[in-house]
Amino acid sequence: MSTFGTHFRVHTYGESHCLSVGCIVDGVPPGMELTEADIQPQMTRRRPGQSAITTPRNEKDRVEIQSGTEFGVTLGSPIALRVMNENQRKQDYGNKTMDLYPRPSHADWTYLEKYGVKASSGGGRSSARETIGRVAAGAIAEKYLRLAHGVEIVAFTTSVGNEFLFPPTPSHPTASTNPDFLKLLDVIDRETVDKHIPVRCPDAAATKRMEDLIAEYRDRHDSIGGVVTCVIRNCPSGLGEPCFDKLEAMLAHAMLSIPATKGFEIGSGFGGCQVPGSVHNDPFIKATDSAAGRPRLTTKTNNSGGIQGGISNGAPIYFNVAFKPPATIGQAQTTVTYDEEEGVLEAKGRHDPCVVPRAVPIVEAMAALVIIDSLMAQQARQTARSLLPPLKATIPAEKTVVGNSKLQEEMTNGS
Amino acid sequence: MSTFGTHFRVHTYGESHCLSVGCIVDGVPPGMELTEADIQPQMTRRRPGQSAITTPRNEKDRVEIQSGTEFGVTLGSPIALRVMNENQRKQDYGNKTMDLYPRPSHADWTYLEKYGVKASSGGGRSSARETIGRVAAGAIAEKYLRLAHGVEIVAFTTSVGNEFLFPPTPSHPTASTNPDFLKLLDVIDRETVDKHIPVRCPDAAATKRMEDLIAEYRDRHDSIGGVVTCVIRNCPSGLGEPCFDKLEAMLAHAMLSIPATKGFEIGSGFGGCQVPGSVHNDPFIKATDSAAGRPRLTTKTNNSGGIQGGISNGAPIYFNVAFKPPATIGQAQTTVTYDEEEGVLEAKGRHDPCVVPRAVPIVEAMAALVIIDSLMAQQARQTARSLLPPLKATIPAEKTVVGNSKLQEEMTNGS
Amino acid sequence: MSTFGTHFRVHTYGESHCLSVGCIVDGVPPGMELTEADIQPQMTRRRPGQSAITTPRNEKDRVEIQSGTEFGVTLGSPIALRVMNENQRKQDYGNKTMDLYPRPSHADWTYLEKYGVKASSGGGRSSARETIGRVAAGAIAEKYLRLAHGVEIVAFTTSVGNEFLFPPTPSHPTASTNPDFLKLLDVIDRETVDKHIPVRCPDAAATKRMEDLIAEYRDRHDSIGGVVTCVIRNCPSGLGEPCFDKLEAMLAHAMLSIPATKGFEIGSGFGGCQVPGSVHNDPFIKATDSAAGRPRLTTKTNNSGGIQGGISNGAPIYFNVAFKPPATIGQAQTTVTYDEEEGVLEAKGRHDPCVVPRAVPIVEAMAALVIIDSLMAQQARQTARSLLPPLKATIPAEKTVVGNSKLQEEMTNGS
Amino acid sequence: MSTFGTHFRVHTYGESHCLSVGCIVDGVPPGMELTEADIQPQMTRRRPGQSAITTPRNEKDRVEIQSGTEFGVTLGSPIALRVMNENQRKQDYGNKTMDLYPRPSHADWTYLEKYGVKASSGGGRSSARETIGRVAAGAIAEKYLRLAHGVEIVAFTTSVGNEFLFPPTPSHPTASTNPDFLKLLDVIDRETVDKHIPVRCPDAAATKRMEDLIAEYRDRHDSIGGVVTCVIRNCPSGLGEPCFDKLEAMLAHAMLSIPATKGFEIGSGFGGCQVPGSVHNDPFIKATDSAAGRPRLTTKTNNSGGIQGGISNGAPIYFNVAFKPPATIGQAQTTVTYDEEEGVLEAKGRHDPCVVPRAVPIVEAMAALVIIDSLMAQQARQTARSLLPPLKATIPAEKTVVGNSKLQEEMTNGS
Repeated sequence: MSTFGTHFRVHTYGESHCLSVGCIVDGVPPGMELTEADIQPQMTRRRPGQSAITTPRNEKDRVEIQSGTEFGVTLGSPIALRVMNENQRKQDYGNKTMDLYPRPSHADWTYLEKYGVKASSGGGRSSARETIGRVAAGAIAEKYLRLAHGVEIVAFTTSVGNEFLFPPTPSHPTASTNPDFLKLLDVIDRETVDKHIPVRCPDAAATKRMEDLIAEYRDRHDSIGGVVTCVIRNCPSGLGEPCFDKLEAMLAHAMLSIPATKGFEIGSGFGGCQVPGSVHNDPFIKATDSAAGRPRLTTKTNNSGGIQGGISNGAPIYFNVAFKPPATIGQAQTTVTYDEEEGVLEAKGRHDPCVVPRAVPIVEAMAALVIIDSLMAQQARQTARSLLPPLKATIPAEKTVVGNSKLQEEMTNGS
Repeated sequence: MSTFGTHFRVHTYGESHCLSVGCIVDGVPPGMELTEADIQPQMTRRRPGQSAITTPRNEKDRVEIQSGTEFGVTLGSPIALRVMNENQRKQDYGNKTMDLYPRPSHADWTYLEKYGVKASSGGGRSSARETIGRVAAGAIAEKYLRLAHGVEIVAFTTSVGNEFLFPPTPSHPTASTNPDFLKLLDVIDRETVDKHIPVRCPDAAATKRMEDLIAEYRDRHDSIGGVVTCVIRNCPSGLGEPCFDKLEAMLAHAMLSIPATKGFEIGSGFGGCQVPGSVHNDPFIKATDSAAGRPRLTTKTNNSGGIQGGISNGAPIYFNVAFKPPATIGQAQTTVTYDEEEGVLEAKGRHDPCVVPRAVPIVEAMAALVIIDSLMAQQARQTARSLLPPLKATIPAEKTVVGNSKLQEEMTNGS
Repeated sequence: MSTFGTHFRVHTYGESHCLSVGCIVDGVPPGMELTEADIQPQMTRRRPGQSAITTPRNEKDRVEIQSGTEFGVTLGSPIALRVMNENQRKQDYGNKTMDLYPRPSHADWTYLEKYGVKASSGGGRSSARETIGRVAAGAIAEKYLRLAHGVEIVAFTTSVGNEFLFPPTPSHPTASTNPDFLKLLDVIDRETVDKHIPVRCPDAAATKRMEDLIAEYRDRHDSIGGVVTCVIRNCPSGLGEPCFDKLEAMLAHAMLSIPATKGFEIGSGFGGCQVPGSVHNDPFIKATDSAAGRPRLTTKTNNSGGIQGGISNGAPIYFNVAFKPPATIGQAQTTVTYDEEEGVLEAKGRHDPCVVPRAVPIVEAMAALVIIDSLMAQQARQTARSLLPPLKATIPAEKTVVGNSKLQEEMTNGS
Repeated sequence: MSTFGTHFRVHTYGESHCLSVGCIVDGVPPGMELTEADIQPQMTRRRPGQSAITTPRNEKDRVEIQSGTEFGVTLGSPIALRVMNENQRKQDYGNKTMDLYPRPSHADWTYLEKYGVKASSGGGRSSARETIGRVAAGAIAEKYLRLAHGVEIVAFTTSVGNEFLFPPTPSHPTASTNPDFLKLLDVIDRETVDKHIPVRCPDAAATKRMEDLIAEYRDRHDSIGGVVTCVIRNCPSGLGEPCFDKLEAMLAHAMLSIPATKGFEIGSGFGGCQVPGSVHNDPFIKATDSAAGRPRLTTKTNNSGGIQGGISNGAPIYFNVAFKPPATIGQAQTTVTYDEEEGVLEAKGRHDPCVVPRAVPIVEAMAALVIIDSLMAQQARQTARSLLPPLKATIPAEKTVVGNSKLQEEMTNGS
């Protein structure tokens, strides 16, 4: 199924060459102002060819709201969104040679294994156009999160090939222990990110190195991968389900569902495996920015990435997503046809040698979809609880007693 | 909700100190022989303290089937599984000081933020005992996958701290391009893994280095993380849904739902971002081991990790899971109480300085749950399709024509 | 959420005055021929005003496939369907008096209670236009069911007001014991039903009485309800889940989700409460029409309505759906405004005095959606089972022994 | 799957002869006092043999909480509930003749068609013992609904065979127009119902007639059906989803999932088809009992049954459920064996000649499960909306203008 989310549910549709692509967004809170103007900016950030051209391409990928709003206000009913395809294939055009080969590391072969039929050309459902519906839905989610909770979601490029914004070092095998990284997470915004077009790495020197590296691969008719980092600030605490639907599990699910992704790290990630527990643990401190609805405690460090036990703690949530080098390259590739005949497949034309910069708004969109779904689950629970008669204290009554005395953590954590 | 899966659905329950822990496994195919003896071995591999003791601890964590089988055969109805808790807290024992502090990097604080109440001690629902239900359910899934498709799932430790079985190198930033790694994936089995107890890294020298490193952290009252690698062999092709529920997305979801995980990589993973597309692409070759039900084509290399476009291609699926250093350490930690008073929390007793070895069967269990759920979705689709009248060819008829001529890949992939 | 189904999932959208209405149909088996021509006929049967006019209105409610097919064949990806609205309200037109009152027995008041906002006029999401997406999706489901299993679904009117096709009698408190009724179920087809336009009761005399009755209510500016009966022939056995998702429970859910419905009966229904068990029980007999895939046994009578223990037995499934009198009537009604002021609300114009005839294709569509979803669940289970090694007999080995000897049914049915 | 509900989810397990039956209840609001004593009473009301015996049978079907509470307070984690089976079949006892026949109108045959295997005796998963988990879960839901919203759910018998508490008459084809019926709905409570044991029809004369009728069928070794009516008072307004998951659709689903049910009616039901719209419409009036959280308007009549457009309006919700005559009867039945051999099947022992009285707590339980699930969905929506910035009025500003002037209802309801 092409659905995501339980309370705020997105259902996407569309292939590369059909009439239109789009989605139904269900569960949008009623009474929110919403027009196409709220959705289009992220659509435009997702568009290809943003670096090479100076003329506005805004007329492309225009989203149109079909339902669910009236006079610019959400009704609470499903919001259908549609973007026309321009490359519709109108008729059966005969059998081009390009269709003889399943393209290496594309989805041609696996789609055929799965369905027994496949779209005759282009990526079909695996086309990057499938992400249009996600970005549109994510923009709606983002608007709610911003209005209701001041949530800020910002993604940016942190590596391309072997060029890193924060390269791992022996003392910082993970950026999560690097104060510069944490400082950046606190302040980075989309405006700054977009000043570093085309790479979207918010550091002039790093972005130049990455841009040069991409150009190098482009000139070799090759491609290269990279990493997108994303931060979610002002996320309410208490989001995520304890067991299978931990918040990081939902984020991982969402991110690995983006085409071309190969990895996900929350907080300290893989590098964190090399950090001792004594350094990795995030001690609690009293929160100073105690705005309404913010938790009283926060953590001094944030190797957890804002999530503990699968549940958000109110600190910034951040994660990395690895994108592989694009599979479409200009070089000749020796491979076999659908009929098992060896041959050489060569692609012509302009290709995107690195998808990372364009992936930035897609990562933001998927993050927004995860957060809003978890938020609405938690709001249901909190509201349900708030209507119950008050309980006797369930936290020890003497909880205010000792301050600095050494206490002992019991070892019956279960196992 | 504590449920996982759509067609093969697991619902777990249980905290650290309640009467029992367990699960309901729903959607188990009827007509399969199944007794507790099929489930217990993985339960036992998950048990703590396996390295330090020689006396068998098999009597612990005995699983008992409540329903869903008769005369050792599955009925198709829900199978309830139960394991008794031994550390039940029978009554309110007053307010121990240990309850004053939310433990750093544990779930104490976030559970309280989420629920407004929390279990009075131990990890409650975040306890590692929660994974008992997963391992039990996974064992049932594994049995089916093995019987019906010959699927083999084997996990093992590949790093502890900065000790790696396959350390990244400039020429192999990812193990996916390393022939030794791929060779190991083809042959590794659980017997071999368990010969390398306690670390479960299937290489004598590496496992020794890791064991020493763990001992070092244990002696310092500290802890350390590591990586578990898992391979799934003989997985049918065509599993995974194209859009949000790509097979790697489901695996990422499953793995990040295991306590203490911080990262997930499929195939080439993060290291794959540094590999050019011309190397990273997996060309197709004719499959030689064309057993019944196996695809006609396979890939020459396997940077994809057995999944392309979110759908399994029949090649080995492999992935890495990062586990952080355990949060419970013997050192004193300066932190604050629930009441925002700074103090020092110190744990006593024996702790597990590294969870990675015990995580091995949990990773295997979650992998089995993902594969069986995707498999049943695909079986429904394939069966539905097989009952339709035959179609005219949807792949070009001339597909057998050219062999070695250079062809052109069209660039209308959509974007 | 506006979704229905797990394996074959429909997601509808659209209000009375938005840009378009439609749906996404997900999980459609790949490789089926499908064009708009397969969908339009039921859309047209659903259209209003079919009786009063002779000119074809086919140009209205044209459905357009957006995605999921290529060259007239389903790809297995989501199929988006769209029908334009013609009464879009382009701008805020000021506050008409008609908006002062929540219309009695309409959804105006409850929508406002639910959402805090409501569409400014018309039925909004509660409009009958919402059923367009259902009928379109149902047509796709029906095509598959017919092609793959020869399933036939036919609905027709059996009562209007107190005019009945099979009035309850002391000897037949339920039509399920009436041989004439069962005979009709075996042969009725849509062509015959549509010969009895406008009422769609397949009996000349009864349809005339009903038509006259409707005319009578129309002339009084009043409205009247009625009952639609639906039969599903050639439904495979084994569909339905034993516990909560019994096949009749899914049918009841589907039917009560149609606007204006007030009741559902499967098989003998409410009248069956008056029939003794000795008459009501359906004894088994050997099936004579043992086509491939049909069960070996069938039942002599069919008070069960083709479903036993929540699971289809291969006999015709039939059920009744009660439709209330339409809430929009031409008479003045004393009621209150949103502001609690008493007043008189009067509707002008032409109204539909009885929705039953137009409900016929909607009932068929929802029936098709239930059957295909259950079918795909069962196909997944059967395929999964078929791949297991054979079992020892689970039915007693001596099962072929006795013929006519009296046996005893054990009383340990559990309770 | 054996799950019910999205936000408050019940997963049941258990057959007639396995070790135990029970369920996991997930999504229970945290912080509610809960012990077995809250659950047992409805379990006991469900027990068989309540009329014929005077000795307390309370020791049977004792429910035991496995998890999810501590010190008598819910933690928000899954609550597992277990009841031991007493008729466990310990070993393969050979092939009794009773297993040769699929019992008429039981689930024996359809289970075999569905699963290819079946429990060797008793009803297996179709046993009435499956409802134990429902009743236990429903008791938890009811406690929350009562504490948080004062919801009262009361079911009672309204017909047995052709004996009715409110027989249909020409002037009242549906009880919904009968003031006596509506008055009863306002006051009936469980205490009163249980005073009319064994039939549970809250009218001395009617219950006597029904009891006699049941006795008559019992003496003939036959069985008879009947109707249970259920009322839900103080249900919050705004519950139910507009399209597929209308509140009445969820109730119909829930009720038809109870074994032996054949029909469902909400509000006026089938009889309502005979009532003109001018009588059937429920005009609005100002609510007088405007307690906090209650809607400002209510309806003068209640043919809608408390639900309009699929959404609760705050008025009493009431519905009928038809139960067929039990399939197990003492008479000899001519039928065929699994091997298609005709023969005579005869049951011995004591049977329940009418399940209606015992169904009362099951109906209440399922009603509670529907209401709490809808309530939590609505609470999520309302809370989400409440956090948005205020909107300009979406209801016309002049809404306070006219009182008694005749207004016109626009005819653009869409169709």
